[in-house]
Amino acid sequence: MDRRTFLLQAVTASFVTGVASQVSATSYFFQPAVDQLLFDGINRVKDHAKKTGLEKSHSPAILAPISAKSGEPFTVEIMVGENLHPMGPSHWIEYIELSIGNEPAGRLEFQSRGFMKPKAVFTIAIPKDAAPSGKITLVARQRCNLHGLWESSADISIT
Amino acid sequence: MDRRTFLLQAVTASFVTGVASQVSATSYFFQPAVDQLLFDGINRVKDHAKKTGLEKSHSPAILAPISAKSGEPFTVEIMVGENLHPMGPSHWIEYIELSIGNEPAGRLEFQSRGFMKPKAVFTIAIPKDAAPSGKITLVARQRCNLHGLWESSADISIT
Amino acid sequence: MDRRTFLLQAVTASFVTGVASQVSATSYFFQPAVDQLLFDGINRVKDHAKKTGLEKSHSPAILAPISAKSGEPFTVEIMVGENLHPMGPSHWIEYIELSIGNEPAGRLEFQSRGFMKPKAVFTIAIPKDAAPSGKITLVARQRCNLHGLWESSADISIT
Amino acid sequence: MDRRTFLLQAVTASFVTGVASQVSATSYFFQPAVDQLLFDGINRVKDHAKKTGLEKSHSPAILAPISAKSGEPFTVEIMVGENLHPMGPSHWIEYIELSIGNEPAGRLEFQSRGFMKPKAVFTIAIPKDAAPSGKITLVARQRCNLHGLWESSADISIT
Repeated sequence: MDRRTFLLQAVTASFVTGVASQVSATSYFFQPAVDQLLFDGINRVKDHAKKTGLEKSHSPAILAPISAKSGEPFTVEIMVGENLHPMGPSHWIEYIELSIGNEPAGRLEFQSRGFMKPKAVFTIAIPKDAAPSGKITLVARQRCNLHGLWESSADISIT
Repeated sequence: MDRRTFLLQAVTASFVTGVASQVSATSYFFQPAVDQLLFDGINRVKDHAKKTGLEKSHSPAILAPISAKSGEPFTVEIMVGENLHPMGPSHWIEYIELSIGNEPAGRLEFQSRGFMKPKAVFTIAIPKDAAPSGKITLVARQRCNLHGLWESSADISIT
Repeated sequence: MDRRTFLLQAVTASFVTGVASQVSATSYFFQPAVDQLLFDGINRVKDHAKKTGLEKSHSPAILAPISAKSGEPFTVEIMVGENLHPMGPSHWIEYIELSIGNEPAGRLEFQSRGFMKPKAVFTIAIPKDAAPSGKITLVARQRCNLHGLWESSADISIT
Repeated sequence: MDRRTFLLQAVTASFVTGVASQVSATSYFFQPAVDQLLFDGINRVKDHAKKTGLEKSHSPAILAPISAKSGEPFTVEIMVGENLHPMGPSHWIEYIELSIGNEPAGRLEFQSRGFMKPKAVFTIAIPKDAAPSGKITLVARQRCNLHGLWESSADISIT
């Protein structure tokens, strides 16, 4: 009797966790083959003065004002790649999402058909009480089916 | 004059790219305060024999068969937490998503109102040519608004 | 000069609002060709005693208990089609969503690659104050890229 | 034995369709009370020369060029309401989505917390072979939790 079948019989709840210890991040069975390291965590630009090619093509670029008045709408533009990342059935950006600190604000989801470019413009307004310190952090994330999850962020003042 | 102020004055549109180098992960302005380290990467159970409380309550548990026939549907059940994680406006699971290796398959998105429990059952079928090695890796991810992104995975054989 | 051309010349941004009156539902330019009438509204089974083929293959089937205790979790299973609808890049179910009355509860989004079957199992719990009348309506919706939006519903008692 | 329990026992597949005939659109149990008629179909502006208040506040306004070159990116701006619709936990716009004819292109999903305004800017490019007739229809949809699904559309030429 293998371990999972055993667990299935042993537990009342009749479920087993699949996070079995034999699975490690280095043994994922990916199709197609990708660089496994990119899927281990959240990718960010390491040195802004010396970006790698992958960082240039995948890090979300955030276009936002330095400061905004509380309650007043402003736009946050997020682009994937300094030159826009390609979009097509075999290689595409699944979504661009924006959080205000750890609070999710919205997510633009793309179909893989390729009509859309990986660029989003969000219009947001921050109430005074959401920025008690006078600052918030805009956090932009995107996921590429071949190159994993990427994040960048920018602090802005709320006056 | 810092770089962003300079840009702000230089461009007509009065916007700046925010991926400025002065922003580091340790200076996010979160509201409410959370453990910043949880937002630095993808959280996974470190030692399955000795899970922490946070790992028990946030790691996606995967219930899946050990092997499946190619082309035949089977279910993959994913639960957030050994006891289901609470759901409500101030603390909730935003989504549960399933990928087949690096290929996204589907995502169950929850409203924060709290009607839904953080549990998903997906019915999937893997064609032969998607598992050339005879194995695939099921990758389950969820994100909690206060405790970040969590992932677990399980390999299954496709015969 | 039509209204849009006029606006085009009048505004600096060289863009126009497209909700112009000359566009009617019967003139959509679809690719590929589909039955336009299916996209005019929300499709529902017209006569449960005599379902059409399209109704059988597209109406969401809801499996749910007749009554549930307030606060206690129960499952709601939703399938697209009495025999599951096919899933593939050219014809697929984009999502299955569940609302509690008019309140959205969750949405399962599918990729068009075809790994997933159009079936969802949601686990929900209804607090007493969300069912002041002692009843709620489960509303299931799905959208097919070729056959439009479909809805079905079921009332259940909350005791 | 009630009808659904009976069905549960009678069918091999052990599920029942919940679209039981006793449920009609006029008997939904909504919480809070809303105008049921708005949830019966897809709402559109009826007479562009004489919009009602609800049409003004809920119909998606599309800002797009009259024509575009195939393969060249252009922006499509979609706003909910001539004056932007309010966003907050009890009344909000769940999403704005854009389709190219019947083909979904992308969807911007909003959290109900209220940081975001119901406005989206999509950047799209239409390949020649997706517009064999030389025209495409942009279809914008949004759903309001209290006032249902709304759609508007605009034809543009692809040269």
